[in-house]
Amino acid sequence: MAEIEIVKDIMEENDEIAREVNGILNSKNIYCINIISSPGAGKTTLLEKTLARLKGRTECAVIEGDISTPIDRDRLLPHCDSVYQINTDTFGGDCHLSAFMIKDALKEFDLDKIKLLIIENVGNLICPADFEIGEHSKVLLYSLTEGEDKPLKYPVSFNVADAIVVTKMDLLPHLEVDMAKITENIAKVNARAKVIFVSSKSGEGLNEWIDYLTTAKK
Amino acid sequence: MAEIEIVKDIMEENDEIAREVNGILNSKNIYCINIISSPGAGKTTLLEKTLARLKGRTECAVIEGDISTPIDRDRLLPHCDSVYQINTDTFGGDCHLSAFMIKDALKEFDLDKIKLLIIENVGNLICPADFEIGEHSKVLLYSLTEGEDKPLKYPVSFNVADAIVVTKMDLLPHLEVDMAKITENIAKVNARAKVIFVSSKSGEGLNEWIDYLTTAKK
Repeated sequence: MAEIEIVKDIMEENDEIAREVNGILNSKNIYCINIISSPGAGKTTLLEKTLARLKGRTECAVIEGDISTPIDRDRLLPHCDSVYQINTDTFGGDCHLSAFMIKDALKEFDLDKIKLLIIENVGNLICPADFEIGEHSKVLLYSLTEGEDKPLKYPVSFNVADAIVVTKMDLLPHLEVDMAKITENIAKVNARAKVIFVSSKSGEGLNEWIDYLTTAKK
Repeated sequence: MAEIEIVKDIMEENDEIAREVNGILNSKNIYCINIISSPGAGKTTLLEKTLARLKGRTECAVIEGDISTPIDRDRLLPHCDSVYQINTDTFGGDCHLSAFMIKDALKEFDLDKIKLLIIENVGNLICPADFEIGEHSKVLLYSLTEGEDKPLKYPVSFNVADAIVVTKMDLLPHLEVDMAKITENIAKVNARAKVIFVSSKSGEGLNEWIDYLTTAKK
């Protein structure tokens, strides 16, 4: 009983800070997306391509979430001046980002110079879906290599997503994967999400993804 | 402060039940492995091949862990009579298996007829590593498609593993992945683990994997 109360308190406190973060972003006209996926679904690679395409067009900032290492920040810095790395091992190794971490991270940026804030959450297809962090929309990345059944097995994460980006489309000829089943299973869990099929390697779908990002941020 | 105490209590209670589960398994001479990985790293596919090879050789039972759906149980039933599916959505959607779930699941089997119990944990590269569930060893699956940096970014899970199975080796020609870096990064985080490179599709490494399993279970 005490456990349930404590969890409820943690969630309520998080949601309150998330609303505060969202208010700060709105006051500065910054649109914010929260990218969620399994480890290795291609979040950082997609961001490399995205930032390269948005350079000189939209002022971006990125918050990188990982348990450990500044690897992702270092990958993105060549494409964007404003990249901040959160390592959750300084907070006990949390398996997701929390709103208070984002609130702190905002202090690292000149918010008057940003139009789009991209947050790459910790690689985890479960826990990040439960924690609002002040974002305007959630984008879920789903690698083709993960198989057709993932929407059904991870329904909460797939359901909260505003957009679902199916990644690594270039590997399709080398996988035994049924694309119709992928589309069908996504629709079963979330018929409302925009679904985009991309390959950061071949460039497939990147125009549609950039269009979505730049349209959504209005 | 109360939060930390509650978490400590949960972990201690879990560990106590895990010791109890381990005692039950030992009393029946059952060897138990706990398989951990990201979603879609190929746990169930490897188990299909493993159970097919062990048929008539080692009496196996499998406990499948997923948030939702009996998909994995249904995939394994053609290869093994004793498969039990745990869906954590009946426990609030837990992101990992806990010892009490395994203790309950053991009641579903005739323990006198089992030599090897394989537990497929919920697909998550973070949380399952923190929860003992009565196993004798932990096996971490790491798909080649996840990239070279995962051991460094998920050090706890890689560190607790007794064996690390690098999966989907058949995709190597189609990926920009540095095998030397994979080996190097695993060794940085866990120099003690047995590392096996497999492809469930081509059969590469399956003999070595089966040898490991059948030797480890002595």
